[in-house]
Amino acid sequence: MKRNRILIVGGVAAGPAAAAKAKRLDPRLDITLFEQGEFISYGTCSMPYYVGQVIEDYQRLIVFTPKSFRQEKQCAVFVRHRVESISPHRKFIVVRNLEKDSVEEHKYDKLVLATGAKARIPDPAWLKFSNVLTIKNLQDSIRLKSHLHDRRPSRVVIVGGGFIGMEMAEALTRHRLDVTVVHKDALPMPSLETESRKIVLDELHRQGVRFTGDATVSGFDGEGDVVTRVRTSAGDMPADMVLLAMGFQPNTDMAAEARLRCGPLGGFVVDAAGRTSVEHIYAAGACTEIRNAVTNKPLYLPLGHIANRMGWVVGENLAGVRSEFGPVVRTTAVKIFDLEVAASGLSLREALAHGFQAETTAIHAPSRSKMYPGGRELFVMLVVDRRTGRLLGANLLGEEGAALRANIVSAAIRNRMTVKEFSKLDLMYTPPFSPVWDPLLVAANASIRKS
Amino acid sequence: MKRNRILIVGGVAAGPAAAAKAKRLDPRLDITLFEQGEFISYGTCSMPYYVGQVIEDYQRLIVFTPKSFRQEKQCAVFVRHRVESISPHRKFIVVRNLEKDSVEEHKYDKLVLATGAKARIPDPAWLKFSNVLTIKNLQDSIRLKSHLHDRRPSRVVIVGGGFIGMEMAEALTRHRLDVTVVHKDALPMPSLETESRKIVLDELHRQGVRFTGDATVSGFDGEGDVVTRVRTSAGDMPADMVLLAMGFQPNTDMAAEARLRCGPLGGFVVDAAGRTSVEHIYAAGACTEIRNAVTNKPLYLPLGHIANRMGWVVGENLAGVRSEFGPVVRTTAVKIFDLEVAASGLSLREALAHGFQAETTAIHAPSRSKMYPGGRELFVMLVVDRRTGRLLGANLLGEEGAALRANIVSAAIRNRMTVKEFSKLDLMYTPPFSPVWDPLLVAANASIRKS
Repeated sequence: MKRNRILIVGGVAAGPAAAAKAKRLDPRLDITLFEQGEFISYGTCSMPYYVGQVIEDYQRLIVFTPKSFRQEKQCAVFVRHRVESISPHRKFIVVRNLEKDSVEEHKYDKLVLATGAKARIPDPAWLKFSNVLTIKNLQDSIRLKSHLHDRRPSRVVIVGGGFIGMEMAEALTRHRLDVTVVHKDALPMPSLETESRKIVLDELHRQGVRFTGDATVSGFDGEGDVVTRVRTSAGDMPADMVLLAMGFQPNTDMAAEARLRCGPLGGFVVDAAGRTSVEHIYAAGACTEIRNAVTNKPLYLPLGHIANRMGWVVGENLAGVRSEFGPVVRTTAVKIFDLEVAASGLSLREALAHGFQAETTAIHAPSRSKMYPGGRELFVMLVVDRRTGRLLGANLLGEEGAALRANIVSAAIRNRMTVKEFSKLDLMYTPPFSPVWDPLLVAANASIRKS
Repeated sequence: MKRNRILIVGGVAAGPAAAAKAKRLDPRLDITLFEQGEFISYGTCSMPYYVGQVIEDYQRLIVFTPKSFRQEKQCAVFVRHRVESISPHRKFIVVRNLEKDSVEEHKYDKLVLATGAKARIPDPAWLKFSNVLTIKNLQDSIRLKSHLHDRRPSRVVIVGGGFIGMEMAEALTRHRLDVTVVHKDALPMPSLETESRKIVLDELHRQGVRFTGDATVSGFDGEGDVVTRVRTSAGDMPADMVLLAMGFQPNTDMAAEARLRCGPLGGFVVDAAGRTSVEHIYAAGACTEIRNAVTNKPLYLPLGHIANRMGWVVGENLAGVRSEFGPVVRTTAVKIFDLEVAASGLSLREALAHGFQAETTAIHAPSRSKMYPGGRELFVMLVVDRRTGRLLGANLLGEEGAALRANIVSAAIRNRMTVKEFSKLDLMYTPPFSPVWDPLLVAANASIRKS
């Protein structure tokens, strides 16, 4: 019997997950993984901590090397191989060996696209400056860390005030650099509510990070390939190094040629099993759009654990085990200096845009019993549909217990609980871990009182 | 118009909650609170931390003094007043003023019994020894702390290896005492699964606490009113102080005379609004039985936050606002030295006893990404009904992130999720706060693989 030949394009998160899962369920599968970079199977979400020296060695970020993946998972692995085109009718791909600069064709029975995301950069020419960097992959992170070591910049401008911008502000502050974040809105962290964004801004200031809001970058001045000034709509600012952290977009470069359908957010459209619009081609991870569990609308969420789960689902289907990747509530957490910053579900703006009669309720409450030392103040904001009482979303910020509590909200939203039902959840109480009324219940009770 | 006269018996948790809530909703109510002890409105769950010197001053445990409660809540408060009998037909109670040793009658329109729990003590004579103590209320805690200060015991025997026994083992170890726990079972913490109980035992040993299992206390030897040896079925042991921590039972002393119905667990039977079997009499807190959300059977759960919520519900009903206290999943957490020990839902034994085809699955997984420093190993055991796949319960133990994760399980059980649905929950991921696969999802996946 001929073995099913599976090619996987992309080796960071979804790709290795699909390969490993498929192979485990059906060891007869013939699986080959192509990755254009040097590394496979690493923790992208840990990169800021490697840059910030919380994690000393980049090797710690690597789950499998090409060699260990080959040995343990019995898959072929080719790094420094870029897939350049797909021929869905004849079922082959064209791969460029970046070392030899040669081109090969590989036939497939099933193809998995796990091409991930691309950093959003207004002008590709920006990256020609030797001190304008980005942090999309492990190579970028290593390069950034070498840059800090070799060039010893002192003034850094981070362009972008979202998740990565915030994590990198912390990482670079740990290098005792003078950090300025330039962001398009008045406040950082666009995915959060205004009050939450103010708390994040306060934390940046408290930690000595400058924040220039309502500002866009128009270009750079410099000498040769070295930027010395960043030109922004809020004035010029001196810089020894610029880090672009303006978000991500799906990497679907091969979509058009292969007639792969993309959705409104630019990612591959896939069904719950990970099948694209083209037969025998699957996709998973940050190159795809997923579905929002609350709105049932497309959602772009380029996060490592989502890629991992989707890859797993695709792997199961490749092995003939029916499996589905469901809609997600969208629960996120990020460490911004001393703050846990977490959110689950819809923002107020999204909820209103989707026709909910949404309103917010915010409270501050202690993370532990006030009698017990060491508690921290938590900020909780709930987004609730006034008409049905349904809990739609939440923001949680504080120095302790915000992130894990977002998971409780996630479970509640997943189960379409009303805020009244939510307020009756049986949450544990013991002074070292929680107050008598958990901050989530304080928030729920405040929301109910308003209605 | 005559004001509705409400008498509340018991001033620790449910009583003040009912009084404050009722008064807030209807300031015209005439409310009087009687408490036999010196203190009202304090955090019983914080008492071990006061004894252990984590909380220095017992005043920190007091939320309201009689004076501040009177002033802020506009209720009459009488401490050192013990209610001795109830006459439901004529609607009055007999109250003994313990200071003057005089007796008074008070008429009511509505009566609330918040008489709490009594420490379970095999023989009341045991408490006649001057160095045999218990820790039911704040007076006991203050007395215990004075005892430690004045009598300087060095060898302490704690009788009972449940929640309070464990908390007090930690508290007394902080005083550098030689602590032995004597417990009726082979392992401590009877509410947990065997594997969890072994982890607790390991922690006790690691912290230098002796544990004598399968042992019952038959009596004491001593000189005069001072115990010097504890006689147990596992041999005699020397002791300078004995702490009885053998659990609690509902304080329903006045039940029989007033013909108040008690349930199979000995607590007042109340409906969801807190009404007892006798007209115009409510009850709330640790003197009542509540309902288990999974089995729909009576449950005795003498915990501060449950009393607080029930008191609140009774207060709403007293003020004419319809409100219900629902069944509880039972989610508990306790700090045992460096461990967070948490549980939610049914134990395996309970699940089997209630007809579920229950089985357990246990895993160990890190609390944070392994790439990020400082994570701790978590033990998670899930109890699942094999027939329906329904998640019935969980144990979580570890040095970080166990207690809050029990709340996620609580929300899932409340919503009757299957373990498969649970495994698809959208839980946040960021290296400082969680691994890619949260320990809960690792456990859920392991449980699914077994079936």
